[in-house]
Amino acid sequence: MEEKKKVLVTGAAGFIGSHVAKRMLDLGYDVATIDNLSTGYRSNIPEGVTFYEGDCFDQAIIENLEKTNWSSIIHIAGQSSGEISYDNPVYDLQTNTQSTLMLLKLAQKTGCNSFVYASSMSVYGDRLDSEAKESDQVSPKSFYGVGKLASEHYLRIYTDYNLTCTSLRLCNTYGPGQNMENMRQGMVSIFLSQAINDSHIHVKGDKDRFRDFSYIDDVVHAFERSMEFCDNKYRCLNVTRNIKITVEELVTEIRNLFDEDISVRYEGSTPGDQVGVYGDNTMISKELSWAPSVSLREGLQKMYDWAK
Amino acid sequence: MEEKKKVLVTGAAGFIGSHVAKRMLDLGYDVATIDNLSTGYRSNIPEGVTFYEGDCFDQAIIENLEKTNWSSIIHIAGQSSGEISYDNPVYDLQTNTQSTLMLLKLAQKTGCNSFVYASSMSVYGDRLDSEAKESDQVSPKSFYGVGKLASEHYLRIYTDYNLTCTSLRLCNTYGPGQNMENMRQGMVSIFLSQAINDSHIHVKGDKDRFRDFSYIDDVVHAFERSMEFCDNKYRCLNVTRNIKITVEELVTEIRNLFDEDISVRYEGSTPGDQVGVYGDNTMISKELSWAPSVSLREGLQKMYDWAK
Repeated sequence: MEEKKKVLVTGAAGFIGSHVAKRMLDLGYDVATIDNLSTGYRSNIPEGVTFYEGDCFDQAIIENLEKTNWSSIIHIAGQSSGEISYDNPVYDLQTNTQSTLMLLKLAQKTGCNSFVYASSMSVYGDRLDSEAKESDQVSPKSFYGVGKLASEHYLRIYTDYNLTCTSLRLCNTYGPGQNMENMRQGMVSIFLSQAINDSHIHVKGDKDRFRDFSYIDDVVHAFERSMEFCDNKYRCLNVTRNIKITVEELVTEIRNLFDEDISVRYEGSTPGDQVGVYGDNTMISKELSWAPSVSLREGLQKMYDWAK
Repeated sequence: MEEKKKVLVTGAAGFIGSHVAKRMLDLGYDVATIDNLSTGYRSNIPEGVTFYEGDCFDQAIIENLEKTNWSSIIHIAGQSSGEISYDNPVYDLQTNTQSTLMLLKLAQKTGCNSFVYASSMSVYGDRLDSEAKESDQVSPKSFYGVGKLASEHYLRIYTDYNLTCTSLRLCNTYGPGQNMENMRQGMVSIFLSQAINDSHIHVKGDKDRFRDFSYIDDVVHAFERSMEFCDNKYRCLNVTRNIKITVEELVTEIRNLFDEDISVRYEGSTPGDQVGVYGDNTMISKELSWAPSVSLREGLQKMYDWAK
C-alpha cells in the first residue's frame, strides 16, 4: 500500500483551517494540525486530523514535527483581526510572523514541496480609488497587516531555497463554520449573529467603508490549487471577487435574509480599521484557473441556513 | 537647575550607537543605552551613559525603563548583517523587529516626542538600474531586510498615535570605532582589517557588486537632525551619498591607502547578498537639510589613520 502524503494545515480548530483540513482529508491526504485553541474550538478539528496543541511559534512543537516528511504545509493559524492586533502587537508578530519563519524552516528541513500562507488584503492598507493589484505598492494600516506582509517576504525569500511558496491575500471570508460567538472577528459573522440574537445590528464604524467578500468554499479551492505547485516559483495572489461591497450594502443583504425587521445603528470605531480595499483577481484566475463561484447573496443565504 | 532631557540610544556598545550616544552627551542630554554586548563592547559605551545590559526585546528590561520620561528614543541596537540573519532568522526578527515594537510602546507610554530608527538600504533589495528612492517599491533579499522593513511600518503606524517617527535607511556606514575583529560585518572594516593584518583582501562575492558608503560623522548628523522633529509626521529617509561604488572601486581605494602592495582575491559568496543598491538623497537633503560632508577617500584615510 502506498503511504499517504502528509499535509500540515495549521489552525484547523479555526474557521478557514477546519474547512481546508477537511478538504485535504477528502482528497486522501494524511492531515495534521497545530492549533493553540485561542479562538478556535477543538470540536472544529475534523475527525481524522492529528492534533498538536500549542503555538506555531513554539520551538518544542515545531521540533516534534521535524521527523515527518511533509508534502505540503498550509499555514492558516494566527491572530486574524486587525483590531485585535492592537491589544498585543508583540503576540501578533509572534503568532503571525515568527510562526511563518519557523514553519518555513520546518518545510525546508523535511523536504516539503509546497508552502501556502494565508495572507490578507490588509497588507495593502486603504485603496480608495481602484481595486488593489498584487504588483501595487503596499502600506498596511494595522500591526496585523505588517506581520502578514513580513511573512509574505519570508515566503518569497524561501522560494529561492528550493521550496514553492504561495501567499494568498484573503479578503473577508465568511460561511458556515465561522465563529458566531466572537464579536471582534469577522464582519459577516458578527452582523449575522447580532441579527439572529437581537434583531439588531450594531456597526462599529462607517457605513461607507467597503470590502470584498469570499465564500469559504471558494477560499478552500484556492488553497487546494496553490498546494499543487512545485515549480519553484513564488506566487502572491489576491483571493477576491473584485466586487466592492460597502458595509451598508452588506448590512442590507443580511437584513433581507430575515422576515422580521432588523434595526441598524452605526456608532464607534475600531483601531487600525481600513476605510476600504477590494482586489483585482486577474492574476489568481490566470495562475490557478480560479474563479469565485458563489455570489454574496447565495453565500449569505447558505450561512444563514446553517446559523439558524 | 533645569533637569536634563533624557535620551535612550540603544546599541551604544556598537559602532554607530556609540558615536550617536557620544554626540547626545556632547549636546547635553542625559543618555542611557540598552545593549546585549553580542557584537559590541562594553568599553565602547561612552563614559557617562547609563547602561542596561540585555536585549531590547526583553520585557523585564523595557519595563524597567517605563518610569523614565524619555524625550527621544533612538533605536540602533540589533543584528546588522544580512549574511548573519541567515544563521538564525527568528533571532533576527526578535532583535530587529520585536524590539522596535516594544520600544515604540515604551515611547508612547513615557510621553516621548521623537523616535528614530536605524533602518537599512537592504529594504530595497537589488536596484541595478538606478538609484533607489524612498517612494519606490521594495523587495528585501534577506531576512534582515524584511525585519527592518516591518519595523519601518510599525514606526509609520505609531506616528498616527502622537509620536514623531523617522526611519533612516542607512547604507554601508564606516569609520573609526568600527569593529575590526568581526569578519562578517562591515565591508570596509573587513577589507581594511585584512589589508592591515595580512596585506591581502579576500572578497566573498563579485567585484561588480555595488553599494553606497557613508562616513560615520555624516550618519550621526542624520540621527541628530531627525530627533529634533516633533511635528507628528512620519519620515523615511535614505542616508546616502547617491554615489555608486563598486566593490572593486572600494578595494582599489583601500589598496591606495597603503605603501606596500595589497593582493586581492574574489572568491565565494554569502547568503542573501545584494548585487547592488545605492540611494537618492534628495529627500533627506530637503527634510533635514542634510548633506554628506566626507568623501569616501577622505573617510577611508581617517579610518586608516585610526586603525593603524
